[in-house]
Amino acid sequence: MDTPTTPNLTPAYDTLSATWTRLHHLGHLQSIAGWDQAANMPPKGNEARGAALAEMAALLHRMRTDPALKSQLGAAEQEPLDELQRANLREMQREWRASNALPESLVQRQQMATSRCEHAWRTQRPENDWAGFCVNFREVLALAREEAALLSAQSGLRKYDAMMERFEPGMRCEQVDRVFGEVRQWLPGLVRQVRDKQARETVIEPVGPFPLASQRALCEKVIGLLGFDFEAGRLDVSTHPFCGGVPEDVRMTTRFREDEFLTSLMGTVHETGHGRYEQNLPRELLGQPVAQARSMALHESQSLSFEMQLGSHTGFAARLAPLVAQTFGPQPAFDAANLHKLMTRVKPGLIRVDADEVTYAAHIILRYEIERPLLEGDIEIEDVPALWDAKMQELLGLDTRGNFCDGPMQDVHWPEALFGYFPCYSLGAMYAAQWFATMRRQMPDLDQRIAAGDLTPVFDWLRSNIWQQASRWTTDELAVRASGEALNPAHFKAHLEKRYLG
Amino acid sequence: MDTPTTPNLTPAYDTLSATWTRLHHLGHLQSIAGWDQAANMPPKGNEARGAALAEMAALLHRMRTDPALKSQLGAAEQEPLDELQRANLREMQREWRASNALPESLVQRQQMATSRCEHAWRTQRPENDWAGFCVNFREVLALAREEAALLSAQSGLRKYDAMMERFEPGMRCEQVDRVFGEVRQWLPGLVRQVRDKQARETVIEPVGPFPLASQRALCEKVIGLLGFDFEAGRLDVSTHPFCGGVPEDVRMTTRFREDEFLTSLMGTVHETGHGRYEQNLPRELLGQPVAQARSMALHESQSLSFEMQLGSHTGFAARLAPLVAQTFGPQPAFDAANLHKLMTRVKPGLIRVDADEVTYAAHIILRYEIERPLLEGDIEIEDVPALWDAKMQELLGLDTRGNFCDGPMQDVHWPEALFGYFPCYSLGAMYAAQWFATMRRQMPDLDQRIAAGDLTPVFDWLRSNIWQQASRWTTDELAVRASGEALNPAHFKAHLEKRYLG
Repeated sequence: MDTPTTPNLTPAYDTLSATWTRLHHLGHLQSIAGWDQAANMPPKGNEARGAALAEMAALLHRMRTDPALKSQLGAAEQEPLDELQRANLREMQREWRASNALPESLVQRQQMATSRCEHAWRTQRPENDWAGFCVNFREVLALAREEAALLSAQSGLRKYDAMMERFEPGMRCEQVDRVFGEVRQWLPGLVRQVRDKQARETVIEPVGPFPLASQRALCEKVIGLLGFDFEAGRLDVSTHPFCGGVPEDVRMTTRFREDEFLTSLMGTVHETGHGRYEQNLPRELLGQPVAQARSMALHESQSLSFEMQLGSHTGFAARLAPLVAQTFGPQPAFDAANLHKLMTRVKPGLIRVDADEVTYAAHIILRYEIERPLLEGDIEIEDVPALWDAKMQELLGLDTRGNFCDGPMQDVHWPEALFGYFPCYSLGAMYAAQWFATMRRQMPDLDQRIAAGDLTPVFDWLRSNIWQQASRWTTDELAVRASGEALNPAHFKAHLEKRYLG
Repeated sequence: MDTPTTPNLTPAYDTLSATWTRLHHLGHLQSIAGWDQAANMPPKGNEARGAALAEMAALLHRMRTDPALKSQLGAAEQEPLDELQRANLREMQREWRASNALPESLVQRQQMATSRCEHAWRTQRPENDWAGFCVNFREVLALAREEAALLSAQSGLRKYDAMMERFEPGMRCEQVDRVFGEVRQWLPGLVRQVRDKQARETVIEPVGPFPLASQRALCEKVIGLLGFDFEAGRLDVSTHPFCGGVPEDVRMTTRFREDEFLTSLMGTVHETGHGRYEQNLPRELLGQPVAQARSMALHESQSLSFEMQLGSHTGFAARLAPLVAQTFGPQPAFDAANLHKLMTRVKPGLIRVDADEVTYAAHIILRYEIERPLLEGDIEIEDVPALWDAKMQELLGLDTRGNFCDGPMQDVHWPEALFGYFPCYSLGAMYAAQWFATMRRQMPDLDQRIAAGDLTPVFDWLRSNIWQQASRWTTDELAVRASGEALNPAHFKAHLEKRYLG
């Protein structure tokens, strides 16, 4: 029996869409195995896991560079696509261009070089072995420069822009220079003012120990308050906290220390921001590029909306205080106002991941000002320590001479060749401030509602303006639609001044 | 500059070998994701995980049915291979034949049908919903019959043999009939004798509760005693205990109940047998078929060597007793002799996985005698309950009428279409008895050494005779090399009579 059929007007698009669904399925296994490697895997499993993940990376690269894609992408351009499909096609093309710029041999050499460098770095860092680190890092840098040259040739962008494009599409050095240049002007002065003000305040330190099981229970309670869906995700422990897994099954990690609880609690609040973004990406096109998180700066804008804007809000601190007291027993330090002071203490330090909200930007500016000329060949590895020290002196007044482990060896980003990633952290902090400025404009009672324990206006705003938009728009378009303007760092400055000097 | 090169005399074999290494790498991700699904995954992650695993299964099936393999396998036959390479080629051919007998569409339909049946079974079983179960199971059975017909046509084996070949290569109904037929003769009588003897004994029941954290610590201590390498594996919790992961990273699971500790402890000892087999497979050809565990009966022979032969040995019970008392505090029940009585109590029951060492075989014989004619079309699903009841009456004197949940619905094997697997459990128990009979012949002081806490002779014998042999020989050859004879169930009967009537 013949049934009437609707002619398929988008055959090329549909084929592409099926390919990306397959990439999504295989990428799922890659993500879960990657999370397992950090959260569960015993040490002797590492070699086999590395080989398995390299095999999958090569397979996915082959799928993304399949010669058939080129004509399918061309044909799909001519098909009658709706707006969402067109956005999806734009994102497919972006992924395709980036993959095709790189030969598989380079991808494999990079995988081996970064894996070797990262593995050795784990022991070289505690030994402050800069010379040993440089041996491996030289190879990583050489391959990254090769990648930057290829991506630059293909895109016409300058090398650092071409690398940044992998994490923050559309962002350019010109804009980063302008934004960071401004911050550079007012940051050292702000740090001094805040330090002076805080020197006159009394802060009561919590007294430990804080049993790990209690910390874990507290974290899970707070994650629940923040709306994370535990039916579609987990919290586990790993050396370096992160948010991994897949949108359908988000795997957050944290780490606990018996003598201190606030770092892991606020770290968990941070990861919950990442987690809710992933859990609330639109489901109807899940697996397609258009349904993925927009960029790393936007991702950080979610974790920092949770950790800094919401988590370090006086209203949220008041909400936390009784939970902390219930968990560990009452202490004077758990008074809401004191808890908030603990969350917002400003103190220049050597380590980025331990930095407070105010001095954090200095760490990022420093790394950007070093990794950009390093990648583009204007400086060499030998120049890094002196530059590092000069910039730490200038921005935070700290001496780092001879201290490589707490200096240029402190982060995993360089061993892993993630050049172009660092700016996303501070751009994310700026976007987060911009989102909350917009919310306050649209909901003048926002702070009272947060203080009253009602977090839904924040979640509703983020859900409709950020999470559900996924990669439908460019980052600039998304920002304009959400807040009426593209990235405007004035909101970040205003936020810091209000919270720390107000 | 020209360098002298050795001509490669085995290009086809090397190509095949590289393909199987890729299969091993991708299979690694499949195994870890499968373990994660059982041990970690939150409920809403199930659909995405299912889709990801189905994608991988289809990919691996395509790799195993790549038309290029046929000529490569043929060409490799003519190459100058050493004995190990030839054994590897034999195993490749076996895998290749099995994969090529089945069209991808059947594989996919089976995946969907078993997934649907298994998923519904989880709720139908507690509701004793036999009629509902049959709806899905009918489809599973139809597809299994289709698979059996295809495998039979390709191999020339009868249908059940062709299905059993997937788990126990070389085993045939003829042999299973002979072996199980013998057991059928003496088993009911032995059960009666043992029950009479045990009825005159006094056994002291342990008094709970047994805190879960303490049980876990005890299990980990015992696993350590048994030589499991925690640097290359883990113990976690799942609803249905199993041993998964990969040889380089073995993932065992157990489950704990507060009111009883011995089941999970002995279950963990069981899984440790599986785990040590995997951890001690030969490393030089890892990833190749010849380096994989020989068969499921041999795998069960390892878990049962650990659980039954070694774990339920009076000498091992004496070793355990002080650990149990240290863990839960002293109790009269923890006396070594009493602990051994608890481990070896015989009581006919409805549930296979709860059965003791003696009555266990009755459960397997019953399933074999039902699933074989069911698969081969000699009976239909409607005939199963009456047959089940008749055989439970005959073998164990139990009435099962109307009790489907503790009858034909109790196992996951039928919903998952694992026809041909059940015999491996009892064959494994028989092999385990045969290995220990051999060890005692070769090492007359074996029982004294075990009683003195020296388990190394057992591990050394298993390592060199079973673990390190992997799939180098057929099962029969391996058994002859290890013990001087192929499967001989007389050792099993002798073991039971000695332990339970001696």
